[in-house]
Amino acid sequence: MRTDYLLKNNTALRLYQSVKDLPIVDYHCHLSPKEIFEDLPFDNIGEIWLAGDHYKWRLMRAAGIDEELITGCASWYDKFVNYISALEFASNNPLYHWSQMELSIYFKVDLPLTSENAQEIWNQANAYIKEVKLSPRKLIESSNVETICTTDDLADDLSWHQKIKEEGKLKANVLPSFRYDNLILMQRDGYLNYVAKLSAVSGIAIKDLASLKEAVKSRLAFFLERGCRCTDVGIPYFPNAIATEEEANDTFQSVLNGEKISHEKYLALLGNLYLYFGKLFTEHHMMSQWHLAVTRNTNSKLFARCGADCGCDCIGQTVSGNDLIMMLDTLQQNNALPLTIIYSLNPANLEQIASIAGAYPQVRSGAAWWFNDHLQGIAKQMEIISQYSILGEFFGMLTDSRSFLSYARHDYFRRILCSLVGQWVEDGEYYEPSAVKLVENVSYYNIKKWM
Amino acid sequence: MRTDYLLKNNTALRLYQSVKDLPIVDYHCHLSPKEIFEDLPFDNIGEIWLAGDHYKWRLMRAAGIDEELITGCASWYDKFVNYISALEFASNNPLYHWSQMELSIYFKVDLPLTSENAQEIWNQANAYIKEVKLSPRKLIESSNVETICTTDDLADDLSWHQKIKEEGKLKANVLPSFRYDNLILMQRDGYLNYVAKLSAVSGIAIKDLASLKEAVKSRLAFFLERGCRCTDVGIPYFPNAIATEEEANDTFQSVLNGEKISHEKYLALLGNLYLYFGKLFTEHHMMSQWHLAVTRNTNSKLFARCGADCGCDCIGQTVSGNDLIMMLDTLQQNNALPLTIIYSLNPANLEQIASIAGAYPQVRSGAAWWFNDHLQGIAKQMEIISQYSILGEFFGMLTDSRSFLSYARHDYFRRILCSLVGQWVEDGEYYEPSAVKLVENVSYYNIKKWM
Amino acid sequence: MRTDYLLKNNTALRLYQSVKDLPIVDYHCHLSPKEIFEDLPFDNIGEIWLAGDHYKWRLMRAAGIDEELITGCASWYDKFVNYISALEFASNNPLYHWSQMELSIYFKVDLPLTSENAQEIWNQANAYIKEVKLSPRKLIESSNVETICTTDDLADDLSWHQKIKEEGKLKANVLPSFRYDNLILMQRDGYLNYVAKLSAVSGIAIKDLASLKEAVKSRLAFFLERGCRCTDVGIPYFPNAIATEEEANDTFQSVLNGEKISHEKYLALLGNLYLYFGKLFTEHHMMSQWHLAVTRNTNSKLFARCGADCGCDCIGQTVSGNDLIMMLDTLQQNNALPLTIIYSLNPANLEQIASIAGAYPQVRSGAAWWFNDHLQGIAKQMEIISQYSILGEFFGMLTDSRSFLSYARHDYFRRILCSLVGQWVEDGEYYEPSAVKLVENVSYYNIKKWM
Repeated sequence: MRTDYLLKNNTALRLYQSVKDLPIVDYHCHLSPKEIFEDLPFDNIGEIWLAGDHYKWRLMRAAGIDEELITGCASWYDKFVNYISALEFASNNPLYHWSQMELSIYFKVDLPLTSENAQEIWNQANAYIKEVKLSPRKLIESSNVETICTTDDLADDLSWHQKIKEEGKLKANVLPSFRYDNLILMQRDGYLNYVAKLSAVSGIAIKDLASLKEAVKSRLAFFLERGCRCTDVGIPYFPNAIATEEEANDTFQSVLNGEKISHEKYLALLGNLYLYFGKLFTEHHMMSQWHLAVTRNTNSKLFARCGADCGCDCIGQTVSGNDLIMMLDTLQQNNALPLTIIYSLNPANLEQIASIAGAYPQVRSGAAWWFNDHLQGIAKQMEIISQYSILGEFFGMLTDSRSFLSYARHDYFRRILCSLVGQWVEDGEYYEPSAVKLVENVSYYNIKKWM
Repeated sequence: MRTDYLLKNNTALRLYQSVKDLPIVDYHCHLSPKEIFEDLPFDNIGEIWLAGDHYKWRLMRAAGIDEELITGCASWYDKFVNYISALEFASNNPLYHWSQMELSIYFKVDLPLTSENAQEIWNQANAYIKEVKLSPRKLIESSNVETICTTDDLADDLSWHQKIKEEGKLKANVLPSFRYDNLILMQRDGYLNYVAKLSAVSGIAIKDLASLKEAVKSRLAFFLERGCRCTDVGIPYFPNAIATEEEANDTFQSVLNGEKISHEKYLALLGNLYLYFGKLFTEHHMMSQWHLAVTRNTNSKLFARCGADCGCDCIGQTVSGNDLIMMLDTLQQNNALPLTIIYSLNPANLEQIASIAGAYPQVRSGAAWWFNDHLQGIAKQMEIISQYSILGEFFGMLTDSRSFLSYARHDYFRRILCSLVGQWVEDGEYYEPSAVKLVENVSYYNIKKWM
Repeated sequence: MRTDYLLKNNTALRLYQSVKDLPIVDYHCHLSPKEIFEDLPFDNIGEIWLAGDHYKWRLMRAAGIDEELITGCASWYDKFVNYISALEFASNNPLYHWSQMELSIYFKVDLPLTSENAQEIWNQANAYIKEVKLSPRKLIESSNVETICTTDDLADDLSWHQKIKEEGKLKANVLPSFRYDNLILMQRDGYLNYVAKLSAVSGIAIKDLASLKEAVKSRLAFFLERGCRCTDVGIPYFPNAIATEEEANDTFQSVLNGEKISHEKYLALLGNLYLYFGKLFTEHHMMSQWHLAVTRNTNSKLFARCGADCGCDCIGQTVSGNDLIMMLDTLQQNNALPLTIIYSLNPANLEQIASIAGAYPQVRSGAAWWFNDHLQGIAKQMEIISQYSILGEFFGMLTDSRSFLSYARHDYFRRILCSLVGQWVEDGEYYEPSAVKLVENVSYYNIKKWM
């Protein structure tokens, strides 16, 4: 990895100097607070990379590699070697870039990613892991991470967050985020068990809509005490009506009775709940994050074998702009629209969403997400924000990752940002002193100031 | 602003020499003929820029600026300073480019757009305004404008156009365009008042569909006498049927009686009217402009405070290609498809529309519009025309603007055009002598010859 | 045409050296096996270019050329001259590039494409045609074509394929592909005649669903004997249910009786048939090609005059990702999902489809198709594959063409591929030795190994 990696013009090289050492505020990720607390040293690069990373599993499947060598019982070495063989011809895939950066930054390995080099990469990386006793906290600290916002179900007891705090050794703040997908996906098997768990953890017996809301409110208060600033949710459906308390309660009672409810009634109940959540989040000045346009678990065979999050989620349909407008506007009219960040997985939606965000001052486009979080996708997404809004107001990068190595993606992002803005300066379209402030704000200060 | 601003290759510099001094035919704008006639000198750069420009208002809102400083009672100076502060970090936003170009071209100010410079920009610009007594006509003349097609409701009496003509002093032609949105949006409050106005101005008592059509025909004749060549409309819905005269008359009678009509009947009536308009426009060899994929007035709070055109319109859903085909084909089969220019606000639709235009010789893709009228959007739109049709046949730029400063956008467009075509020449993919003719035709001669 | 045509960086120049002389496997085209067998020498460049090429007809219509000079009775010379006049200002249109390449490669003409040069191009090209007695086989051989997969209705007797084989003189393999559009488009006029033809050619009296399937199976066996490896279809609709054998038979009986069937029943019958086809193709390790998102014959006037394939097909609506997932998943659960290549004509769908393909190891995104088969479209499509999957696994280019000159498009493709991958190497993002293998595999070895 060259020092000018991804820095495609001279101004970019200069801009990068002003952001490369700024701390990281990772305001949405899926790191495990348990793993952070326990801080167990890693064993080998194969396990680190391939134990739970469905991005990599997809890539290996696309190379025709047998499932046994992906999620099966093969050895970490065999899995690793096969991953490298898939990667060799995956030029421009973000995994190629990330793997290259992670090896260079965290394992001091700078070999080309070829099948021929696979064994040598394995040896060098593992030797380094042993030598420095590489562990989650070592990665967090060497990445200069200031704040980590994990993703936590609202029924979570946040005990690991508490242990980290009580221990008081980690420099980085590890804050919970309030995720409520499990609460609103009422048709899933086990929903009543989930309600029971929520009753237990909140100490409020949930027997109707009012007590559900009490429980939610109580959990949010608990999260806020633990430093929570962000909430996020995958929006499964946009409501086309807002049920009154009475209607919503009727529907929720049916849910509690294990009855099947019509989609129409479900949507109206959802509308009622979104309003409730929106009011709470607004009151507490939280950042609300919406994830749109995903279709999950599409490959039944693979799902049956490997379960959820195994690499068969896909880009969903473009969202209806009118649905989105209806929801935003209703929330706003009810003082229930806090700072809201919208992420869409379908890139055909990005311009429309940016224009809709522009009609509500407290709504913003989020960073390129998941499948679109590649070199051109990140640049494209920032270009869209610049075209339809103000790039300098962007909250910037988050990892959305389960891996401690993913902090390299913040460096990836900053390099892309500097190249993009640097080119405008080179072309005489922007002013370098403003550009310096812009890249610093987007890399760190915007989110830092907000937190 | 450097002389090679946006000219990204040497061939572009040469091509630009052949188009920079060509006259401007602005075949669709929202300039006020009254303001042109009265020609009142401007007062200050704050008022010029911020009095009615919802593009700028959106940008300021995205920067978190208080509404009082946007559309409220704050002074022009305070509004101006706040606008510049928002702009400083809005690199690559078209407002950044346009503001920079307008300052340089029309106010001789070449300072970087920073908060620090805001007061100095204010001073220099205002001094220049005073010095040259800057006014609408001065801007029109210094921009070498040959023809201005304003946008006028078909019930408009065109008295200001007439005054401009009678006075005979302005070198540029100021021609009305025939806009019929108000006629077809029959569900809006005040529609019957509109019909009464149309009756009055046309001298034809509108009491059924036949008399409505007579009134329309009479108004079109009046517009044509005043030099009208273009018509435009925001297509609210595509019809899925064409009502017979009898059916359409029944529906229209219901409208006149203040009765609510079904959406289905409305669509069929629309179909009938579109056919009627299409026949008239074809007969008179007019250019018909269709604006698609907009959702208006999305933010209820802002709309309640500021009314329409305040910056809360958004990119609408992609249009159904099949609906568009059905409409174009029906018109064509009835000799009711004149030269038709299609503008789509949703960029995810552009390739499809370009391919549909390619199936009807008299249909063409229009210039990048509104939110998409940014540097990359303009280039992208021309690239799409080049990929799916013939770039050299493109009618080129129009401002669609309410501001006399927007002629700078023609220069913006020409520079982008020259860079795009110049790059093809540099890459050995195109022939420079043809390129010279192409950029001249697209900048001026295509629309000039048509007018 | 410069030797570095479209090769935009130094690495690209080197990569191109390793692929320019590789053979061509054209795994989907519309060449006529009859024309290949007969090998009649060409007469003139006008006829070669304009006799049946609806891409060129569209372009000429967009230039306002009279239909008489496009598909009418005008002389080939007049048509040719008019085509060149349209082309002169069609910079960046693929026809501009292809025409330039074809003239240079196959006719040794390197004049700029201008109206002024039209007569000289005509003279030089025709002189060369006469001199070398240019014919289909000469073009196939000089293009180093190894395999040609034609497109053949499943009721075709493949007699011309047989003649070519028996004659044994052509170095290239000419293999049939199994196309079943005519079988599934049951609402078209003449469907019963088609069934009768299928009965006759298969020797199986089609009187119900079971005998239809027998006939299909028998035809497929016949095609496989003739070397068939590929099948393709334009997917008209995605089924939302799979009819049982009994239900499907009932519906098909209604079709055979000439009765009108509901769309719902038709879709369920389609679902049943897709499953049947999928099982057969899987069993025989075939490549299944799906063409999506087309709307055909949109211009009724033109269709009435010139019939199908006259240049009034368009990009259709984006496909519903959920429909596509439902179909792929159902096929896979029934062991009826062979290697499947998906082509979408609507570019707004490409990322979503790439992500869906990534969830099924045996599904892949196909090459840029038809209207999108232009310089940027080809590059964009490969970029998407690289971002969402593995570029090195891509099967690469096919011509989809009726013209023997279209082999130039393989050169076009290889140059674009080398530029794209070369740039990544130049930017330090990829490793040149891997890049060499990648471009070789995508240009030839991937499809070669599969065939």
